[in-house]
This record gives sequence, structure tokens and C-alpha cells, in this order.
Amino acid sequence: MRVALIQLAGGSGDKKADIALACEKIREASAQGADIAVLPEMFCCPYETSAFRSYGEAEGGEAQAALSSLSRELGLYIVGGSVPELEGDRIYNTSYVYGRDGVQLARHRKVHLFDIDVEGGQRFMESDTLSPGSQITTFETEFGTMGLCICFDFRFEELARLMALRGAKVLFVPAAFNMTTGPAHWELMFRQRSVDNQCFTVGVSPARNESASYVAYGNSMAVDPWGTVLTRCGGEPCIQYVDLDLSRADSVRRQLPILSARRTDLYEIKEV
Amino acid sequence: MRVALIQLAGGSGDKKADIALACEKIREASAQGADIAVLPEMFCCPYETSAFRSYGEAEGGEAQAALSSLSRELGLYIVGGSVPELEGDRIYNTSYVYGRDGVQLARHRKVHLFDIDVEGGQRFMESDTLSPGSQITTFETEFGTMGLCICFDFRFEELARLMALRGAKVLFVPAAFNMTTGPAHWELMFRQRSVDNQCFTVGVSPARNESASYVAYGNSMAVDPWGTVLTRCGGEPCIQYVDLDLSRADSVRRQLPILSARRTDLYEIKEV
Repeated sequence: MRVALIQLAGGSGDKKADIALACEKIREASAQGADIAVLPEMFCCPYETSAFRSYGEAEGGEAQAALSSLSRELGLYIVGGSVPELEGDRIYNTSYVYGRDGVQLARHRKVHLFDIDVEGGQRFMESDTLSPGSQITTFETEFGTMGLCICFDFRFEELARLMALRGAKVLFVPAAFNMTTGPAHWELMFRQRSVDNQCFTVGVSPARNESASYVAYGNSMAVDPWGTVLTRCGGEPCIQYVDLDLSRADSVRRQLPILSARRTDLYEIKEV
Repeated sequence: MRVALIQLAGGSGDKKADIALACEKIREASAQGADIAVLPEMFCCPYETSAFRSYGEAEGGEAQAALSSLSRELGLYIVGGSVPELEGDRIYNTSYVYGRDGVQLARHRKVHLFDIDVEGGQRFMESDTLSPGSQITTFETEFGTMGLCICFDFRFEELARLMALRGAKVLFVPAAFNMTTGPAHWELMFRQRSVDNQCFTVGVSPARNESASYVAYGNSMAVDPWGTVLTRCGGEPCIQYVDLDLSRADSVRRQLPILSARRTDLYEIKEV
């Protein structure tokens, strides 16, 4: 199962150009044999709360139509980063996934909005303009069950655990950490979620753009169930490819029993 | 709140000598102003399943009596690593905590037994001889609520989360990772548990003894709620001191809301 981590420049302020760039890079990934192409969070919208409405689109909008059409044409899965989704008065930060036939396999609306105010560091309040989703998201593929969440969602261990308990062996996370949280927590989070849930994690960020109001950390990466970083971008736009052997998850789960040795007689975690 | 991480050589095969060594190091820590002295897992017993019964002791046994008496004499808290506790036919891997007055504040029996069989790496089966505990453990101090678990317990995120939800701002973890899991996961685990639960974590291991059948990794460490390693031992016997400012937990929880922003309408974790 070959995954392409497409770390786009994106967020240029020209939505059509950003979508065209994403499609160009997905074509490149397809030519390299990718089964699943993964885009970053807000790949065709500046990451600013004031931009979410004007760059947003309703169900079936421009970005979605382009990715659906391209997945059918190329016959690969696309984890479509995220876009601002408009529904009535509401705006969601939403990730769409398309199958090899172009059909929408999943729609995840970010459930944990990113409200952060670090002294001397980053401040950002998604909840000023966005509404939160209310679903935990997994989807089925020919390779098995996959999990999907967006950036700040992945800070919440319960969400990752519940995706793993549904059977997900790969967790896809379009995301955009910043220059405060990125160096401090990005690699740590992907590695520990992988170790805790004995699964692969794939995080895809926008490239770093020092002139943007929100500077993304980049460092898109894939981590295996032992916590080993398999591949990693730097700050520049790039595509990294990684071949995931999902039987590795079964092997790690056998050698170091965590998922199976949970003391569910003492504690339980469940979806409400 | 000054914590002493006492990374003992220990496990010499001479229980009396190991207890005497622990007491000597606790006296040294007290002289350095420690409020809480923390010992390693199985500090007066070789870490071998075959040794647990012969080095074990019932409630109020030799190691416990020595630590209780010393905490009263010196007027400091002792997180007494762990000892094999005998109760009827059963053996538990148990950590006792004593208050400044020598009274036992907590008893934690390891609830997740360490059964691991890594290909080309470490094999160990605690469940061959030990019985698991059945309690999640926190205790009250003048500094606030503290959490306590032993080594492999800390692999299970639910346990740490539940201690934090009980109000623990410091999680104490007597532990003994090995030369397979230590380099791979030790620092990662302490850092991510700290970040996820926005609390301090303190792990204390035996020193590395290359001639032991189970070679502990050492690297006792304390981590702050932002995930920063505050202090760390190497492989050699040593004592590290760290002054924890518990208001740092409140500050991090305010700046980066994780504990308070959990979507408990979508998922819940609870004690059974």
C-alpha cells in the first residue's frame, strides 16, 4: 500500500490555482504508483479564520468535484486534506475521502476546534468562525479499515484510540501545526499515537510559508506501529512516498501486547 | 516541591544490602531538601520471575517497615519503588507510598503485567509468577493529588488519563524498561503522557547492570506538562533533583486546552 504525502505550498490566496496545484501533484503521485494520495489541512484556503467563509464551499463544491473526478480518472484513493465546508450559516473544517471510483468514502468534520493562546507563542481561535463536527470517522478500503481526523483532533488520545478499536491500522491526519507547537509536539504526537495504538500514522501539513499569517511547521511524516519515523518532509513543498506493510501492525501487536492487554475490567472507553 | 529521582544500582541479590542502600540514598536526598524521594521498580529484588517469591514480603514486611520508619524519621514522602508483595499464594508487583509521618498513603499493585516477546529482542513474562492488581491509584499530599503506577501500566493511556481526571498533576512511575524498549519508547512515553494529560511525569528506573539477566535502561527522568524533559539520568547509579512548580500545569492547561476541551459528548472514558 503506497501512500503519497503531498506537502503542498497551497494557501496562496487563489483557490483555483491551489486546487490545480493539488491535482498536478496527485497526478505525479499516481505516476509513482501511489495507492493513496494525502493532502494537507486547508490546502486551498489561507489558514486564517477570516478566510474560511469566502474560500468555503457547500457539499459537492469545486474542490470536492475536482478531487472526486481525479480519483476516478486515476483510480487511486485521495484523502483530500481539508476545506472549509459551508452548510447553512455554519462553516466546518472538513476532510473528504474518495475511493478509486471517485465515490466519497468519508467526510470528517473536525470535532476539536483549535483554540490556543500560548504565552509568547501562537494564538489562534478556530471557534471564532468554525463549528465543530460530531462524528468519529473511519472508512473501509481494499487494504482494511482506515481512520481519519484533522490536526487538533489528534491531540485527543480518545479519538485515536476509538479509531484503532474500530479496527483502523492507519490513521490519516491532514494537519497544520505551527512554529510553536510543531517543534515541541508534532513528531512526538505521531510517534506516541502509533505506539499506543500499534498502528501507522500519516500526518500531512502544508509547506512552511514564512510570509503567511499562520506559519505551518511542515514536516509531514509517516510513522510505523513501533514508533519509527518512516519518512519525513522538511519545511519545503515536497512529496514523500512510503510503502506500508499493514501486517507489521499485527506483528507489533503480538510481540508487545497493548491493544489486547487493556484492562477493560478496570476502565472503559467508548463512543457516546 | 523538590523530587529526588533515586536511580539505584539495586537488585544485587542481597535484599538487606539493597534496602540499606536505598535508605542511605534517601537520607542523602533528604539532606538536599527533597520533599519526595522516588525509588525504582523492584529495588531490592533481582528482576527475574524466579526471584519474586523468595525476595517477596507480606504486608508490613522488611522493606516496607524500613521505608515507613525512614519517612517518619526524615519527615519526607517516599514513593517506594516496588517490591514483590506476598498475599496467600499470590505475588503482586507493589508500590507503597509513605507520608511525612510514615503512614502508608497508597499501595499500588501493578495492574498490567509485563508480557513481551520481541523478535530478536527482549522476552519477559511477568504473568508466569505474578498476579495483577485491580485498582487505579492516586493519593493526596500537601501539594495536591498525585498518581502512581508501575512501568508497563504506563503503556496504557487510559490509566494515565484516569489519574489525571482524578486531579493528579504529577504521575510517579517506578519502572524498568530494557535495552530493547528503553531506547525505542521510554522518553517518548513520558513526554507524550505529560503532553496528553498536561501534567508532570516522573519515571525512576534501576541503573543499568550489564551482568543482570534483565538489563534495565536507566534514564530516570522528569518531564513537565509541555513535554520538556526537566532532568534525566544516564545508565549509572545517580540521584537527580527537580523542583516542580505545579502551577505550570494550570498554565499549560489554560494556553493549550486539551483536558478541558475533550469532547465528552462524543466519547467517554471511565473507571469500571
